[in-house]
Amino acid sequence: MKELEDRIVQDGKVKPGGILKVDSFLNHQIDPQLLYSMAMELKRLYEGCGVNKILTVEASGIAIAAMAGYVFSCPLVFAKKSKTKNISDAVWTAEVESFTHGGSNTLIVSKEYLGPGDRVLIVDDFLATGAALYGLKSICEQAGAEIVGAGIEIEKVFQGGGNRLRAEGMRIESLAKISSMADNGLEFEK
Amino acid sequence: MKELEDRIVQDGKVKPGGILKVDSFLNHQIDPQLLYSMAMELKRLYEGCGVNKILTVEASGIAIAAMAGYVFSCPLVFAKKSKTKNISDAVWTAEVESFTHGGSNTLIVSKEYLGPGDRVLIVDDFLATGAALYGLKSICEQAGAEIVGAGIEIEKVFQGGGNRLRAEGMRIESLAKISSMADNGLEFEK
Repeated sequence: MKELEDRIVQDGKVKPGGILKVDSFLNHQIDPQLLYSMAMELKRLYEGCGVNKILTVEASGIAIAAMAGYVFSCPLVFAKKSKTKNISDAVWTAEVESFTHGGSNTLIVSKEYLGPGDRVLIVDDFLATGAALYGLKSICEQAGAEIVGAGIEIEKVFQGGGNRLRAEGMRIESLAKISSMADNGLEFEK
Repeated sequence: MKELEDRIVQDGKVKPGGILKVDSFLNHQIDPQLLYSMAMELKRLYEGCGVNKILTVEASGIAIAAMAGYVFSCPLVFAKKSKTKNISDAVWTAEVESFTHGGSNTLIVSKEYLGPGDRVLIVDDFLATGAALYGLKSICEQAGAEIVGAGIEIEKVFQGGGNRLRAEGMRIESLAKISSMADNGLEFEK
Protein backbone atom coordinates (compact mmCIF):
# COMPACT_ATOMS: atom_id res chain seq x y z
CA MET A 1 0.00 0.00 0.00
CA LYS A 2 1.85 2.98 -1.34
CA GLU A 3 0.37 5.54 1.06
CA LEU A 4 1.69 3.59 4.04
CA GLU A 5 5.10 2.86 2.48
CA ASP A 6 5.56 6.54 1.66
CA ARG A 7 4.65 7.50 5.19
CA ILE A 8 7.10 4.98 6.68
CA VAL A 9 9.89 6.39 4.49
CA GLN A 10 8.94 9.95 5.42
CA ASP A 11 8.32 9.61 9.16
CA GLY A 12 9.65 6.23 10.33
CA LYS A 13 12.95 5.91 12.15
CA VAL A 14 15.21 2.87 12.20
CA LYS A 15 16.73 2.20 15.62
CA PRO A 16 19.51 -0.21 16.56
CA GLY A 17 18.39 -3.78 17.22
CA GLY A 18 15.89 -4.07 14.39
CA ILE A 19 13.38 -1.63 15.85
CA LEU A 20 11.36 0.51 13.45
CA LYS A 21 9.88 3.53 15.21
CA VAL A 22 6.62 4.64 13.67
CA ASP A 23 5.23 6.21 16.78
CA SER A 24 4.60 9.60 15.19
CA PHE A 25 1.75 8.18 13.07
CA LEU A 26 1.03 4.53 13.91
CA ASN A 27 1.44 3.45 17.50
CA HIS A 28 1.79 6.28 20.00
CA GLN A 29 0.49 9.22 18.03
CA ILE A 30 -1.86 7.89 15.33
CA ASP A 31 -3.05 9.48 12.10
CA PRO A 32 -6.71 8.43 11.89
CA GLN A 33 -7.05 9.23 8.17
CA LEU A 34 -4.24 6.77 7.46
CA LEU A 35 -5.95 4.33 9.82
CA TYR A 36 -9.13 4.63 7.77
CA SER A 37 -7.25 4.13 4.48
CA MET A 38 -5.62 0.99 5.87
CA ALA A 39 -8.94 -0.39 7.11
CA MET A 40 -10.49 0.24 3.68
CA GLU A 41 -7.60 -1.54 1.99
CA LEU A 42 -8.13 -4.56 4.27
CA LYS A 43 -11.80 -4.46 3.36
CA ARG A 44 -10.92 -4.49 -0.34
CA LEU A 45 -8.51 -7.40 0.15
CA TYR A 46 -10.98 -9.48 2.18
CA GLU A 47 -14.14 -8.49 0.27
CA GLY A 48 -16.53 -11.42 -0.03
CA CYS A 49 -14.77 -13.53 2.61
CA GLY A 50 -17.60 -13.28 5.10
CA VAL A 51 -15.55 -11.76 7.91
CA ASN A 52 -17.86 -11.29 10.90
CA LYS A 53 -15.33 -10.62 13.67
CA ILE A 54 -12.10 -8.66 14.00
CA LEU A 55 -9.57 -9.96 16.53
CA THR A 56 -6.47 -8.21 17.82
CA VAL A 57 -4.38 -7.89 20.95
CA GLU A 58 -4.04 -4.85 23.22
CA ALA A 59 -2.74 -2.21 23.13
CA SER A 60 -1.55 -0.86 19.79
CA GLY A 61 -3.63 -3.26 17.69
CA ILE A 62 -6.84 -1.74 19.04
CA ALA A 63 -6.79 1.34 16.79
CA ILE A 64 -6.70 -0.57 13.50
CA ALA A 65 -9.14 -3.13 14.91
CA ALA A 66 -11.64 -0.40 15.81
CA MET A 67 -11.44 1.11 12.33
CA ALA A 68 -11.55 -2.31 10.66
CA GLY A 69 -14.62 -3.24 12.70
CA TYR A 70 -16.21 0.01 11.56
CA VAL A 71 -15.59 -0.52 7.84
CA PHE A 72 -16.38 -4.27 7.95
CA SER A 73 -19.52 -3.53 10.05
CA CYS A 74 -18.73 -6.26 12.55
CA PRO A 75 -17.65 -6.42 16.21
CA LEU A 76 -14.02 -6.40 17.22
CA VAL A 77 -12.49 -8.25 20.14
CA PHE A 78 -9.14 -7.45 21.66
CA ALA A 79 -7.22 -10.08 23.60
CA LYS A 80 -6.00 -8.83 26.93
CA LYS A 81 -2.47 -9.42 28.11
CA SER A 82 -1.77 -10.72 31.56
CA LYS A 83 1.40 -11.58 33.41
CA THR A 84 -0.51 -14.02 35.58
CA LYS A 85 -1.31 -17.58 34.58
CA ASN A 86 -4.03 -17.89 37.20
CA ILE A 87 -6.95 -17.35 34.86
CA SER A 88 -10.59 -18.42 35.08
CA ASP A 89 -11.93 -21.20 32.88
CA ALA A 90 -14.33 -18.78 31.18
CA VAL A 91 -11.54 -17.66 28.86
CA TRP A 92 -9.36 -18.90 26.03
CA THR A 93 -5.67 -18.31 26.64
CA ALA A 94 -2.34 -18.55 24.84
CA GLU A 95 1.22 -17.94 26.00
CA VAL A 96 3.30 -15.58 23.89
CA GLU A 97 6.83 -14.25 24.03
CA SER A 98 7.26 -10.50 23.61
CA PHE A 99 9.82 -9.44 21.00
CA THR A 100 9.84 -5.77 21.99
CA HIS A 101 9.69 -6.07 25.76
CA GLY A 102 11.08 -9.53 26.47
CA GLY A 103 9.37 -11.93 28.87
CA SER A 104 6.11 -13.69 28.20
CA ASN A 105 2.47 -12.74 28.42
CA THR A 106 -0.75 -14.68 28.50
CA LEU A 107 -3.30 -13.58 25.90
CA ILE A 108 -6.85 -13.84 27.14
CA VAL A 109 -10.18 -13.79 25.30
CA SER A 110 -13.49 -14.42 27.00
CA LYS A 111 -15.23 -17.53 25.68
CA GLU A 112 -18.38 -15.44 25.31
CA TYR A 113 -16.92 -13.44 22.44
CA LEU A 114 -15.29 -16.03 20.22
CA GLY A 115 -16.65 -19.36 19.08
CA PRO A 116 -17.81 -21.57 16.20
CA GLY A 117 -19.58 -19.48 13.58
CA ASP A 118 -17.06 -16.69 13.86
CA ARG A 119 -15.14 -15.93 10.67
CA VAL A 120 -12.20 -14.02 12.03
CA LEU A 121 -9.89 -11.43 10.52
CA ILE A 122 -6.90 -11.03 12.84
CA VAL A 123 -5.37 -7.54 12.66
CA ASP A 124 -2.27 -6.04 14.24
CA ASP A 125 0.12 -3.17 13.78
CA PHE A 126 3.29 -5.28 13.45
CA LEU A 127 4.22 -8.78 12.37
CA ALA A 128 7.81 -9.81 13.09
CA THR A 129 8.48 -13.21 14.66
CA GLY A 130 4.76 -13.96 14.59
CA ALA A 131 4.46 -14.55 18.33
CA ALA A 132 1.25 -12.56 18.77
CA LEU A 133 -0.25 -14.03 15.60
CA TYR A 134 0.53 -17.59 16.73
CA GLY A 135 -1.13 -16.79 20.05
CA LEU A 136 -4.27 -15.41 18.42
CA LYS A 137 -4.35 -18.37 16.01
CA SER A 138 -4.23 -20.75 18.94
CA ILE A 139 -7.08 -18.92 20.62
CA CYS A 140 -9.21 -19.12 17.46
CA GLU A 141 -8.48 -22.85 17.16
CA GLN A 142 -9.43 -23.48 20.79
CA ALA A 143 -12.65 -21.52 20.22
CA GLY A 144 -13.53 -23.40 17.03
CA ALA A 145 -13.58 -20.10 15.14
CA GLU A 146 -12.45 -19.96 11.52
CA ILE A 147 -9.53 -17.71 10.64
CA VAL A 148 -10.23 -16.02 7.32
CA GLY A 149 -6.82 -14.38 7.41
CA ALA A 150 -4.68 -11.69 8.94
CA GLY A 151 -4.34 -8.01 8.10
CA ILE A 152 -1.11 -6.41 9.25
CA GLU A 153 0.03 -2.81 9.01
CA ILE A 154 3.79 -3.49 8.84
CA GLU A 155 5.43 -6.87 8.34
CA LYS A 156 9.14 -7.19 8.95
CA VAL A 157 9.53 -10.01 6.44
CA PHE A 158 13.16 -10.66 7.36
CA GLN A 159 12.11 -11.80 10.83
CA GLY A 160 10.33 -14.76 9.27
CA GLY A 161 7.10 -15.04 11.23
CA GLY A 162 4.82 -14.09 8.36
CA ASN A 163 6.24 -16.55 5.86
CA ARG A 164 6.28 -19.36 8.42
CA LEU A 165 2.57 -18.79 9.09
CA ARG A 166 1.83 -18.55 5.35
CA ALA A 167 3.62 -21.88 4.83
CA GLU A 168 1.31 -23.34 7.48
CA GLY A 169 -1.69 -22.15 5.46
CA MET A 170 -2.67 -18.79 6.91
CA ARG A 171 -3.57 -16.01 4.50
CA ILE A 172 -1.70 -12.89 5.57
CA GLU A 173 -2.05 -9.51 3.90
CA SER A 174 0.51 -6.97 5.06
CA LEU A 175 0.04 -3.39 3.95
CA ALA A 176 3.78 -2.69 4.03
CA LYS A 177 6.33 -5.51 3.83
CA ILE A 178 9.83 -4.56 4.86
CA SER A 179 12.39 -6.93 3.38
CA SER A 180 15.47 -5.31 4.88
CA MET A 181 16.23 -2.62 7.35
CA ALA A 182 19.50 -0.92 8.16
CA ASP A 183 20.61 2.36 9.66
CA ASN A 184 20.76 3.83 6.20
CA GLY A 185 17.30 2.86 4.99
CA LEU A 186 14.51 0.43 4.34
CA GLU A 187 13.59 -1.81 1.48
CA PHE A 188 10.07 -2.96 0.73
CA GLU A 189 9.12 -6.30 -0.74
CA LYS A 190 6.78 -5.81 -3.68
CA MET B 1 -26.89 9.75 25.13
CA LYS B 2 -29.89 7.49 24.94
CA GLU B 3 -28.37 4.89 22.59
CA LEU B 4 -25.57 4.21 25.06
CA GLU B 5 -27.83 4.19 28.13
CA ASP B 6 -30.18 1.73 26.46
CA ARG B 7 -27.26 -0.51 25.55
CA ILE B 8 -25.90 -0.43 29.10
CA VAL B 9 -29.31 -1.43 30.46
CA GLN B 10 -29.64 -4.18 27.86
CA ASP B 11 -26.14 -5.68 27.90
CA GLY B 12 -24.28 -4.34 30.96
CA LYS B 13 -23.83 -6.43 34.08
CA VAL B 14 -23.38 -5.12 37.62
CA LYS B 15 -20.80 -7.07 39.60
CA PRO B 16 -20.02 -6.92 43.33
CA GLY B 17 -17.62 -4.15 44.35
CA GLY B 18 -18.97 -1.41 42.11
CA ILE B 19 -17.82 -2.99 38.87
CA LEU B 20 -19.96 -2.47 35.77
CA LYS B 21 -19.18 -5.05 33.11
CA VAL B 22 -19.73 -3.71 29.61
CA ASP B 23 -17.24 -5.98 27.93
CA SER B 24 -19.71 -7.39 25.44
CA PHE B 25 -19.88 -4.05 23.58
CA LEU B 26 -17.42 -1.51 25.01
CA ASN B 27 -14.13 -2.81 26.33
CA HIS B 28 -13.33 -6.37 25.36
CA GLN B 29 -15.70 -6.95 22.49
CA ILE B 30 -16.56 -3.58 20.95
CA ASP B 31 -19.48 -2.53 18.76
CA PRO B 32 -17.91 -0.16 16.23
CA GLN B 33 -21.22 1.37 15.13
CA LEU B 34 -21.85 2.44 18.72
CA LEU B 35 -18.26 3.68 18.85
CA TYR B 36 -18.94 5.84 15.80
CA SER B 37 -22.18 7.20 17.29
CA MET B 38 -20.33 8.13 20.50
CA ALA B 39 -17.54 9.84 18.59
CA MET B 40 -20.10 11.84 16.59
CA GLU B 41 -21.85 12.88 19.79
CA LEU B 42 -18.51 14.12 21.20
CA LYS B 43 -17.99 16.02 17.97
CA ARG B 44 -21.38 17.66 18.34
CA LEU B 45 -20.68 18.59 21.97
CA TYR B 46 -17.24 20.05 21.23
CA GLU B 47 -18.09 21.62 17.85
CA GLY B 48 -16.29 24.93 17.37
CA CYS B 49 -13.86 24.37 20.25
CA GLY B 50 -10.82 24.00 18.01
CA VAL B 51 -9.84 20.52 19.19
CA ASN B 52 -6.68 19.51 17.33
CA LYS B 53 -5.55 16.50 19.36
CA ILE B 54 -7.24 13.56 21.07
CA LEU B 55 -5.51 12.13 24.14
CA THR B 56 -6.27 8.89 25.94
CA VAL B 57 -4.54 6.12 27.86
CA GLU B 58 -3.99 2.53 26.77
CA ALA B 59 -5.61 0.09 26.43
CA SER B 60 -9.38 0.39 26.39
CA GLY B 61 -9.40 4.15 25.67
CA ILE B 62 -7.74 3.61 22.31
CA ALA B 63 -10.89 2.49 20.47
CA ILE B 64 -12.91 5.63 21.22
CA ALA B 65 -9.80 7.78 20.69
CA ALA B 66 -9.26 6.29 17.23
CA MET B 67 -12.84 6.96 16.22
CA ALA B 68 -12.84 10.44 17.79
CA GLY B 69 -9.63 11.28 15.91
CA TYR B 70 -11.32 10.13 12.73
CA VAL B 71 -14.45 12.26 13.14
CA PHE B 72 -12.54 15.30 14.49
CA SER B 73 -9.93 14.90 11.69
CA CYS B 74 -7.01 15.26 14.07
CA PRO B 75 -4.29 12.97 15.44
CA LEU B 76 -4.76 10.94 18.58
CA VAL B 77 -2.12 10.12 21.16
CA PHE B 78 -2.38 7.36 23.69
CA ALA B 79 -0.39 7.49 26.90
CA LYS B 80 1.46 4.27 27.60
CA LYS B 81 1.40 2.64 30.99
CA SER B 82 4.59 1.47 32.64
CA LYS B 83 5.36 -0.15 35.95
CA THR B 84 8.85 1.27 35.88
CA LYS B 85 9.74 4.78 37.00
CA ASN B 86 13.06 4.71 35.18
CA ILE B 87 11.95 6.75 32.18
CA SER B 88 13.89 8.91 29.71
CA ASP B 89 13.62 12.70 29.87
CA ALA B 90 12.10 12.78 26.38
CA VAL B 91 8.69 12.04 27.88
CA TRP B 92 6.03 13.59 30.08
CA THR B 93 4.97 11.31 32.93
CA ALA B 94 2.34 11.11 35.65
CA GLU B 95 1.78 8.60 38.44
CA VAL B 96 -1.71 7.13 38.70
CA GLU B 97 -3.42 4.63 40.97
CA SER B 98 -5.45 1.91 39.28
CA PHE B 99 -9.00 1.50 40.55
CA THR B 100 -9.67 -1.77 38.74
CA HIS B 101 -6.35 -3.53 39.19
CA GLY B 102 -4.80 -1.91 42.29
CA GLY B 103 -1.21 -0.73 42.36
CA SER B 104 0.12 2.28 40.50
CA ASN B 105 1.25 2.94 36.96
CA THR B 106 3.27 5.65 35.30
CA LEU B 107 1.55 7.25 32.31
CA ILE B 108 3.99 8.23 29.58
CA VAL B 109 3.62 10.53 26.59
CA SER B 110 6.52 11.44 24.31
CA LYS B 111 7.29 15.16 24.40
CA GLU B 112 7.29 15.10 20.59
CA TYR B 113 3.55 14.54 20.46
CA LEU B 114 2.12 17.00 22.98
CA GLY B 115 3.03 20.63 23.48
CA PRO B 116 1.94 24.27 23.41
CA GLY B 117 -0.48 24.87 20.55
CA ASP B 118 -2.29 21.60 21.19
CA ARG B 119 -5.97 21.96 22.07
CA VAL B 120 -6.69 18.62 23.64
CA LEU B 121 -9.82 16.57 24.04
CA ILE B 122 -9.14 13.82 26.57
CA VAL B 123 -11.26 10.71 25.97
CA ASP B 124 -11.66 7.50 27.93
CA ASP B 125 -14.08 4.65 28.37
CA PHE B 126 -14.66 5.09 32.10
CA LEU B 127 -14.49 7.89 34.66
CA ALA B 128 -14.77 6.81 38.28
CA THR B 129 -12.31 8.21 40.84
CA GLY B 130 -10.71 10.30 38.12
CA ALA B 131 -7.21 8.86 38.56
CA ALA B 132 -6.50 8.47 34.84
CA LEU B 133 -8.02 11.86 34.04
CA TYR B 134 -5.91 13.58 36.72
CA GLY B 135 -2.85 11.89 35.25
CA LEU B 136 -3.63 13.01 31.69
CA LYS B 137 -4.43 16.52 32.98
CA SER B 138 -1.04 16.67 34.65
CA ILE B 139 0.67 15.57 31.44
CA CYS B 140 -1.14 18.29 29.44
CA GLU B 141 -0.14 20.91 32.02
CA GLN B 142 3.50 19.82 31.94
CA ALA B 143 3.41 19.99 28.13
CA GLY B 144 1.80 23.43 28.08
CA ALA B 145 -1.10 22.02 26.05
CA GLU B 146 -4.59 23.40 26.56
CA ILE B 147 -7.31 21.01 27.71
CA VAL B 148 -10.52 21.81 25.88
CA GLY B 149 -12.37 19.18 27.86
CA ALA B 150 -12.95 15.50 28.39
CA GLY B 151 -15.27 13.09 26.63
CA ILE B 152 -16.12 9.97 28.59
CA GLU B 153 -18.19 6.96 27.59
CA ILE B 154 -19.43 6.04 31.07
CA GLU B 155 -19.08 8.14 34.22
CA LYS B 156 -19.78 6.54 37.59
CA VAL B 157 -20.89 9.83 39.15
CA PHE B 158 -21.17 8.34 42.64
CA GLN B 159 -17.40 7.75 42.73
CA GLY B 160 -16.86 11.50 42.69
CA GLY B 161 -13.93 11.96 40.31
CA GLY B 162 -15.91 13.73 37.59
CA ASN B 163 -17.54 16.29 39.83
CA ARG B 164 -14.26 17.01 41.62
CA LEU B 165 -12.57 17.73 38.30
CA ARG B 166 -15.54 19.86 37.16
CA ALA B 167 -15.27 21.88 40.38
CA GLU B 168 -11.63 22.50 39.49
CA GLY B 169 -12.70 23.89 36.13
CA MET B 170 -12.50 21.02 33.66
CA ARG B 171 -15.32 20.63 31.17
CA ILE B 172 -16.37 16.98 31.18
CA GLU B 173 -19.01 15.51 28.90
CA SER B 174 -20.00 11.97 29.80
CA LEU B 175 -22.21 10.09 27.37
CA ALA B 176 -23.77 8.00 30.16
CA LYS B 177 -23.73 9.17 33.77
CA ILE B 178 -24.53 6.50 36.30
CA SER B 179 -25.73 7.99 39.57
CA SER B 180 -26.26 4.74 41.43
CA MET B 181 -25.57 1.11 40.88
CA ALA B 182 -26.81 -1.90 42.78
CA ASP B 183 -27.29 -5.58 42.09
CA ASN B 184 -30.85 -4.87 41.05
CA GLY B 185 -30.17 -2.08 38.60
CA LEU B 186 -28.69 1.20 37.51
CA GLU B 187 -29.86 4.78 37.64
CA PHE B 188 -28.73 7.43 35.21
CA GLU B 189 -28.29 11.09 36.05
CA LYS B 190 -30.08 13.27 33.49
